[in-house]
Amino acid sequence: MTPYWLQQPVKAIDADAQQAAQQRQGQLTKPPGSLGQLESLAIQLAGLQANVSPVIEQCWIAVFAADHGIAHQGVSAFPQIVTTEMVRNFARGGAAISVLAAEQHARLEVVNVGTAHDPGELPGVVEQRIGEGTADFSQQPAMTPEQAEQALAAGRDSVQRAQDAGSQLYIGGEMGIANTTSAAALGCVLLQQPARQLVGPGTGLDDSGVRHKAAVIDAAIARHAVSADQPLEVLRHFGGFEIAALSGAFIHAAQCGLPVLVDGFICSVAALIAERLLPGSKQWFIYSHRSAEPGHRAILEALEAKPLLDLGMRLGEGSGAAVALSLLRHACALHNGMATFEEAAVSNKGAGDE
Amino acid sequence: MTPYWLQQPVKAIDADAQQAAQQRQGQLTKPPGSLGQLESLAIQLAGLQANVSPVIEQCWIAVFAADHGIAHQGVSAFPQIVTTEMVRNFARGGAAISVLAAEQHARLEVVNVGTAHDPGELPGVVEQRIGEGTADFSQQPAMTPEQAEQALAAGRDSVQRAQDAGSQLYIGGEMGIANTTSAAALGCVLLQQPARQLVGPGTGLDDSGVRHKAAVIDAAIARHAVSADQPLEVLRHFGGFEIAALSGAFIHAAQCGLPVLVDGFICSVAALIAERLLPGSKQWFIYSHRSAEPGHRAILEALEAKPLLDLGMRLGEGSGAAVALSLLRHACALHNGMATFEEAAVSNKGAGDE
Repeated sequence: MTPYWLQQPVKAIDADAQQAAQQRQGQLTKPPGSLGQLESLAIQLAGLQANVSPVIEQCWIAVFAADHGIAHQGVSAFPQIVTTEMVRNFARGGAAISVLAAEQHARLEVVNVGTAHDPGELPGVVEQRIGEGTADFSQQPAMTPEQAEQALAAGRDSVQRAQDAGSQLYIGGEMGIANTTSAAALGCVLLQQPARQLVGPGTGLDDSGVRHKAAVIDAAIARHAVSADQPLEVLRHFGGFEIAALSGAFIHAAQCGLPVLVDGFICSVAALIAERLLPGSKQWFIYSHRSAEPGHRAILEALEAKPLLDLGMRLGEGSGAAVALSLLRHACALHNGMATFEEAAVSNKGAGDE
Repeated sequence: MTPYWLQQPVKAIDADAQQAAQQRQGQLTKPPGSLGQLESLAIQLAGLQANVSPVIEQCWIAVFAADHGIAHQGVSAFPQIVTTEMVRNFARGGAAISVLAAEQHARLEVVNVGTAHDPGELPGVVEQRIGEGTADFSQQPAMTPEQAEQALAAGRDSVQRAQDAGSQLYIGGEMGIANTTSAAALGCVLLQQPARQLVGPGTGLDDSGVRHKAAVIDAAIARHAVSADQPLEVLRHFGGFEIAALSGAFIHAAQCGLPVLVDGFICSVAALIAERLLPGSKQWFIYSHRSAEPGHRAILEALEAKPLLDLGMRLGEGSGAAVALSLLRHACALHNGMATFEEAAVSNKGAGDE
């Protein structure tokens, strides 16, 4: 059942590079540990890039866009047409991720894996519509098995393009009206929790909207009765094309050895699915931020993730990761550019007062 | 007693620019509030810069270095000579703040307000040594009234240089072996708390070292019996030249209308002193990060500060602020560069499903 490529092993981390980076951190002119997470980040990146002097000059950002049949159940504050309109906004440079990608000198590609409407041909948009949105999972599985495979492969292909372009880091983003509903449903099944633990306002539901959203999810979960230990079936029943694409991308990144900077709630759910489909994938994931969407907490815990930022962001599009990219770059710059105690002729700790 | 310049009023925030920026945030193509603190930052900066499109191209970083007589009481894990050695390291580009300043295209000046040793003439270092370190405050006031005034004025002059260079943001940093002891003592007197509430390991004391540090502080506070409502006297008795310079800088920045990005524990103590010396100054302060130094929490609470980052950093030098500068720039880029719903022809919230 599981496609052959999904069963290929995860690339091993370079423990030697990681250890050498750890040693270097201890020699830099600062009290040991005083750069906090910027130190552990540099060490982690050294292991992932198999390079004691890790760098992130080339960053690839892929935003996957798709619509969701579940939107017809009134689970979003915005109309479905916004997904298509935002694809155009990405292409024209007006969206948050467009602005951040330009500021970060990152390569931005938008992959349309299934908007309900045709946005027309657009520069920088890869047209791979698998359908006009998924089916309404309150009524039937969101995807056919073929569609789920196509969506996973669309993510894999994006990572392949990133690899071919010499990228040193991969950021996945998403756009899809109602996709916090899909992500919450996926999280509920995988973590075996009721919807009230994972739902939130998304783009801006009020309290009664959130309660309705939870009821829709609980009913759909009861209807399909898919087991948590069948992650591909869980993905097919409740996922979106863009979430499946993200999972496929994250798995392939782990197979290729391309570090992934995971964005918020929806990307973290895709990361959890990736880890369930191919255990060990998560070694290649760095977590950018804690989303304001309440369900993110449980997903992060399941991934044992310690995100870098907590700015109350909940936009998606990869925006939190694009912001956190700056922290990775600072970590690398400090790690590579600081002088050692010996180079700078600075006395080390415990050298005794003069 | 208080120098004339310290009594000049704080510049008023531009409420119109702030309101216009708030309106713009509501029109950008994203769910309202979904950029979290990046939205409030942009709005705050608009008010501070009196510009609905705030920018931070020119950033000034001043690192004030000085030694502390209290170092002779064995309160630091590093020997006192390190302050002087690090001044040389700053000048040669090997320190964390040197690396970050270069990466951020920020102007870095080092102001030597009183190292115990003479580092010699160095490029980029302003030589303003007020003494060979402060006096040991466990025995006598750290500074004479004249020294305190000189140190405050050194900070003021640094801000003046930043202003003259057209800076849009001011970051203060510090280097001084034993200055967490000085900062903790200042915090204890100003917040009327015992030393155990505010001391921490600094550059790396063990538990017994931290207890000793607390005992030294408590004894000194009992000896001098200075009242919290005399902030200049508190500063003079327990402060360092670099802490006084930071307070002077922050006050003058608030008078000139130059926004300040406050670094960690020691800079926050200097910010608290600034606010006590000239109430209202803190309107001009943005808080970059929560330090791993435990006393920072109480100081941030006293300032009603909500820092941007929490990365476990505790290096000083202005390093946390230099990292957080990226977030301010992202906030400005998003605020200025994103399209509005109207410009992008994207349907707004509540437009109804098609």
